[in-house]
Amino acid sequence: MSKDLTRRSEDYSKWYNELVVKAELAENSGVRGCMVIKPYGYAIWEKMQAELDRMFKETGHVNAYFPLFVPRSFFEAEEKNAEGFAKECAVVTHYRLKTDPNAKGKLMVDPEAKLEEELVVRPTSEAIIWNTYKNWIQSYRDLPILINQWANVVRWEMRTRLFLRTAEFLWQEGHTAHASKAEALEEAEKMLEVYAEFVENFMCVPVIKGFKTESERFAGADETYCIEALMQDGKALQAGTSHFLGQNFAKAFDVKFASKEGTLDYVWATSWGVSTRLMGALIMTHSDDNGLVLPPKLAPIQVVIIPIYKGEEQLEAVRERVLPLMATLKKQGISVKFDDRDTHKPGFKFNEYELKGVPVRLAVGQRDLENNTFEVARRDTLTKETVSGDSIVEYIEKLLQEIQENIYKKALDYRNAHITEVNSYQEFKEVLESKGGFIAAHWDGTTETEQRIQEETKATIRCIPLEAKEEVGVCMVTGKPSAKRVLFAKAY
Amino acid sequence: MSKDLTRRSEDYSKWYNELVVKAELAENSGVRGCMVIKPYGYAIWEKMQAELDRMFKETGHVNAYFPLFVPRSFFEAEEKNAEGFAKECAVVTHYRLKTDPNAKGKLMVDPEAKLEEELVVRPTSEAIIWNTYKNWIQSYRDLPILINQWANVVRWEMRTRLFLRTAEFLWQEGHTAHASKAEALEEAEKMLEVYAEFVENFMCVPVIKGFKTESERFAGADETYCIEALMQDGKALQAGTSHFLGQNFAKAFDVKFASKEGTLDYVWATSWGVSTRLMGALIMTHSDDNGLVLPPKLAPIQVVIIPIYKGEEQLEAVRERVLPLMATLKKQGISVKFDDRDTHKPGFKFNEYELKGVPVRLAVGQRDLENNTFEVARRDTLTKETVSGDSIVEYIEKLLQEIQENIYKKALDYRNAHITEVNSYQEFKEVLESKGGFIAAHWDGTTETEQRIQEETKATIRCIPLEAKEEVGVCMVTGKPSAKRVLFAKAY
Repeated sequence: MSKDLTRRSEDYSKWYNELVVKAELAENSGVRGCMVIKPYGYAIWEKMQAELDRMFKETGHVNAYFPLFVPRSFFEAEEKNAEGFAKECAVVTHYRLKTDPNAKGKLMVDPEAKLEEELVVRPTSEAIIWNTYKNWIQSYRDLPILINQWANVVRWEMRTRLFLRTAEFLWQEGHTAHASKAEALEEAEKMLEVYAEFVENFMCVPVIKGFKTESERFAGADETYCIEALMQDGKALQAGTSHFLGQNFAKAFDVKFASKEGTLDYVWATSWGVSTRLMGALIMTHSDDNGLVLPPKLAPIQVVIIPIYKGEEQLEAVRERVLPLMATLKKQGISVKFDDRDTHKPGFKFNEYELKGVPVRLAVGQRDLENNTFEVARRDTLTKETVSGDSIVEYIEKLLQEIQENIYKKALDYRNAHITEVNSYQEFKEVLESKGGFIAAHWDGTTETEQRIQEETKATIRCIPLEAKEEVGVCMVTGKPSAKRVLFAKAY
Repeated sequence: MSKDLTRRSEDYSKWYNELVVKAELAENSGVRGCMVIKPYGYAIWEKMQAELDRMFKETGHVNAYFPLFVPRSFFEAEEKNAEGFAKECAVVTHYRLKTDPNAKGKLMVDPEAKLEEELVVRPTSEAIIWNTYKNWIQSYRDLPILINQWANVVRWEMRTRLFLRTAEFLWQEGHTAHASKAEALEEAEKMLEVYAEFVENFMCVPVIKGFKTESERFAGADETYCIEALMQDGKALQAGTSHFLGQNFAKAFDVKFASKEGTLDYVWATSWGVSTRLMGALIMTHSDDNGLVLPPKLAPIQVVIIPIYKGEEQLEAVRERVLPLMATLKKQGISVKFDDRDTHKPGFKFNEYELKGVPVRLAVGQRDLENNTFEVARRDTLTKETVSGDSIVEYIEKLLQEIQENIYKKALDYRNAHITEVNSYQEFKEVLESKGGFIAAHWDGTTETEQRIQEETKATIRCIPLEAKEEVGVCMVTGKPSAKRVLFAKAY
């Protein structure tokens, strides 16, 4: 298998697109802006889903399912939310096609099957869910509601890129309802922590936790918390968001509850989501010019075993050697594949699994059989070792853990080396062009200055870090006072 | 909790609707024909999904994801399929809403954002998938493709009922591609077996395997295999279908492969699906006038423990007794809930868990503490026993298994008692009205006779059973010769 990947240094964006397709993760479909997630890509997403779902349930959440369609009148109800999503929504206007009398074998929209009220394909589900919660909530005894939904959503993006920005994408969206502001804030922060833990511990992608400026907030939120990651080309990627929605949706849908104290109050809300966009972050953070690099905890195949043989007899000897090892590994919860296809040469297979990011590759040849050894190659460092059959299981277990830690550390080192403090706008522009990454700078807190910076440099404020220390300073653009640094970057 | 359920004998249909809502499985949403699947209902669906997914993977299938939208031109390509679904499809015609200049705070479809080609919200995915497979298949080496997708689909049904028939529903759809007719037929039959095994062993719903008559086939299929179940009101319910699609979609999308022999042939296809409709079958097969009856293998809560106490001290004593038991049960993989809410009386709780179909209920009172006993109630028979604390774990394990077997047997007995052989059309009509159920009768094999029977009696041919024995007979309506009996019933 020839990999023929464009090198990252040559054209990072092209490298990414090629990698996604060649590693068989996803491809563009015949539908504008929509992707097909191929089995190998979907297997990674399934692993991500399983872990996240477990974490949501451990923190007290349950799953449910709400309609795909949002009637226009619900969609309109929360004004800011409607304004934010109206520009990019798919609208169902008819419920039937009929034979086109002017073209044989063709169909056309049946004008007699026009809906009285248009249906928006959900770009996010606050509206449809709060219209439902209205009937579920009467008293404080009905609260909190802690629900998550795994679903597809549609946002009619004009420029799409596999996983990073697609018209339809898969995600989970949590929607919670609370009796107090404090409790809702706590929930929004808790879920940010869950996301950060997942992205760092499973995806090996270090993140910075923060909150968004007003102009970058979710449409309809009072506060948007986020986790921001850094890709190898120095551009930032928003990996997850958790919104404190205040009472905005409760007011829009008139959802009140009788409090313990006997008052009638509006309900407090949060929503939070991560999507198949995380696949993009996973791919871009670790992969190299040879292909994908996957963290062992999310790799569909953790270990691949490739026989080096001549003739059926040698293959049979390898097989006898390998089968008990596979059984042992599987018992330890390690997913392993034995690739004994006789249609491809070992070198082809080596390339293929490198491209697909399989963390550990074992090769077994004639000499290994004689010496009771395995050749073990690790994907992250592309190094090899010869390991005795007596200790191979423990070796692999340890190695998988080591790879998980190593790729996190590598990404963390890169990220940390790409946070630059600057104190002037000139310096800011220089660093942005020469080095990229996050730039920590003082800002006067106004949307006006934020927009000016964006227009002049294409950099946006990725977040106001939760852990930003108080520091007396002045805005690098206007010279007005500032109390902490915020993080700028160009972003996906 | 007052259950206030309509009795089945009074109004079966009303009983069903009330049960679905009161047991908090699902409810109607603000969107015409679309339901909200509530957390308790979704938890059952998740268990069904997990088992099916495991079975699909064990039979060599992998998951993937294809777009929600089908461009009209793809949708048209397979003529019969298009004809079958055109009458009930949701159509996206625009990709933007804009402020309505004539109504403050209102939005309207933006006429400038009209799509060049309409998008059909998938009612099923053959069209979009075969348009994709076209690029994946060149040679026999690319075959078979064995893919499954978990997704939502939309069919604009005019009369909807929770779970049984909704405009949007959740399902899985397998789509496979093969090099030969025999292999495709084998796949379609294999998946029918998987469905039958799941529905019988996990849902405890006995099914009859068969194939559909031409007029009941999936639009675009050459053969539709099905499993048919019988509800307590004597009506049949189609629980799953597996289609042999022949080369119809390969021809529509021009998907050819180079065979081993060097010829260029059209690819053979199958598709197969089960949906949230299975929830309806599950509910209607087992439940009674007290509420839901769930098979232990699919119950989100298998055991509920309810303390009978006065004051905090007694509750604490019960808790001390119960916590170690819960830990042991959980270790055995049994899901258990301790309901120590002090806002509700035990009687209320008993009713609630009966309504929700929890298979086993334990009560622990003062006397049980003194005697080291538990009161164990089983949901299926509504009987109680006092069991010693020394053997409670084994008792529960055995009981769960027994309940699983018992409700299957009960459903099987009912089903078997409701298959009636008739030899005249008069007898057919009488049995249909008086007893319902499946009626095994001779039919002349024509669509004409089939339609006449349906018009006159509302009964349809549910299936031609795979195991129907050859038997010389004459059609009960026309007197023409017939070689085997087919199964008629009124159906959901």
